[in-house]
Amino acid sequence: MPRLAGAERAAALDTLDGWREVDSRDAIAKRFQFKDFNEAFGFMSRIAMKAERMDHHPEWFNVYGTVEITLASHDVGGVSERDIALAAFIDALGR
Amino acid sequence: MPRLAGAERAAALDTLDGWREVDSRDAIAKRFQFKDFNEAFGFMSRIAMKAERMDHHPEWFNVYGTVEITLASHDVGGVSERDIALAAFIDALGR
Repeated sequence: MPRLAGAERAAALDTLDGWREVDSRDAIAKRFQFKDFNEAFGFMSRIAMKAERMDHHPEWFNVYGTVEITLASHDVGGVSERDIALAAFIDALGR
Repeated sequence: MPRLAGAERAAALDTLDGWREVDSRDAIAKRFQFKDFNEAFGFMSRIAMKAERMDHHPEWFNVYGTVEITLASHDVGGVSERDIALAAFIDALGR
């Protein structure tokens, strides 16, 4: 599964909700805000189980109700369709 | 519960296993390495449930088998006994 670039990458990002390009590396990111830790970690737990099924995992930071998720495919040195698929799953969780 | 400082803080940190002072702010941190995401997120899940019981939550970053945890008590602007207690629980998980 190749690294996405150019028009193909732009089109793939357009299918997502608010994922941004990371400045310093080839990755995409999105920040989620919940009312408390319980909601934030519940959200992370649903993503964690999906990530295990996909064998494709997020990088993420959490403090209380905030979850900052970064997606990249280390094997291709950038963003692949796996990242787009995981991002679409995360968006579909309803935020 | 006051901010820990001085000899009291040093003594409290001495009871823990390898937690370090954070350079840029009043907090303590420790990095944990697991063999994969499954182990790392299992560890995080046990901590998350304890944090809910304590109503005292970690700040943490995870990528694959790595978990970097930072503890601070925002209400006192530094490290309190709540952080020492949560750190001791985390150490006791067996790493």
